[in-house]
Amino acid sequence: MSLTPQYQTLLQQVKALSENDNNLVSILSNISALLNEHLPDINWVGFYLLQQEEKVLYLGPFQGKAACTRIPLGSGVCGTAAKENKTLRVANVHEFEGHIACDSASNSEIVIPIKVGHDVVGVLDIDSPSLERFSEQDQQGLEAIVQVLNKQLETLDADNFAVYYETPNNLSYKSAKYLSFGVTIGIILGLIFSGLFLLF
Amino acid sequence: MSLTPQYQTLLQQVKALSENDNNLVSILSNISALLNEHLPDINWVGFYLLQQEEKVLYLGPFQGKAACTRIPLGSGVCGTAAKENKTLRVANVHEFEGHIACDSASNSEIVIPIKVGHDVVGVLDIDSPSLERFSEQDQQGLEAIVQVLNKQLETLDADNFAVYYETPNNLSYKSAKYLSFGVTIGIILGLIFSGLFLLF
Repeated sequence: MSLTPQYQTLLQQVKALSENDNNLVSILSNISALLNEHLPDINWVGFYLLQQEEKVLYLGPFQGKAACTRIPLGSGVCGTAAKENKTLRVANVHEFEGHIACDSASNSEIVIPIKVGHDVVGVLDIDSPSLERFSEQDQQGLEAIVQVLNKQLETLDADNFAVYYETPNNLSYKSAKYLSFGVTIGIILGLIFSGLFLLF
Repeated sequence: MSLTPQYQTLLQQVKALSENDNNLVSILSNISALLNEHLPDINWVGFYLLQQEEKVLYLGPFQGKAACTRIPLGSGVCGTAAKENKTLRVANVHEFEGHIACDSASNSEIVIPIKVGHDVVGVLDIDSPSLERFSEQDQQGLEAIVQVLNKQLETLDADNFAVYYETPNNLSYKSAKYLSFGVTIGIILGLIFSGLFLLF
């Protein structure tokens, strides 16, 4: 099954929007604006980003009404999609066990995990006021868009994710220099202590 | 001049939305949603965040159509407000020298600097399709909202700003633990070296 013309166009726009950007928030903000402008019959579209130590999804850039800021991994549609690392397409959210109602206008929902490498780092979440709004074709189109996003995320400086998780990159970017500086200072101190001990 | 009832209510909502949150993007995303829902006659509302080394404003969370992702400090209404650290209320953006037209529907604009301590870290930017949309009272109400936001930003972990600038806090939050760990390892190594030296 190939992408519908609507999703082919959207995919090109997402590529054009994101490929020259190196800031996570700018990219996600513009993608949610684009989807909000071009997808009919939706009331919320945006991102949640996973704080890996806390196992909590934090509200990211979105378009729609103000929303829940924290969703525990495994809770609701977003938390379940992130935990199980798979797209969830829910025809009627009120029948989804543990559904978290951020906007009472929402009746159906699709949630697609976002990944850097093999790790889930968040989700794209779209809500609709209509039941069964999201078809197989929507899922395919949106997953293609998320794949473009995933590739772009891999190119970003680890500082973009500093508040969400600590990668080996975070360490190498910032902390390694402090670690090595600390070891040097420590060795000097250790040698001085030993020298003083020998003298007295 | 006191705040209008509309802005008094909005101010309370912004306080309620932001005071329990500790994630920069969640807070800014929800504030832009709230302003978008309650301010009439606007077509774009959101944030730009200052990358201090590059002297560039990066697009932050917003509501409205997809927008410019980078604005050099000093350029356009946003860049000028950030550089001069003052609110700019522009009755007709087409008469503003160097105006950057992200959305051709915009005709008037208000931009308010956001600060952490004395440092400008970004701006709140609101566009309207009407000329002279923003009054003195709007400015006063929005500045009160930004003050609440500024206070909240001061409480956030410096990791939230890692991609935008490196504060002394960035050091104390994250790197200090590596520094102290490094010093400990170094002292132990120094003592071992001295001990080995004494033995042989």
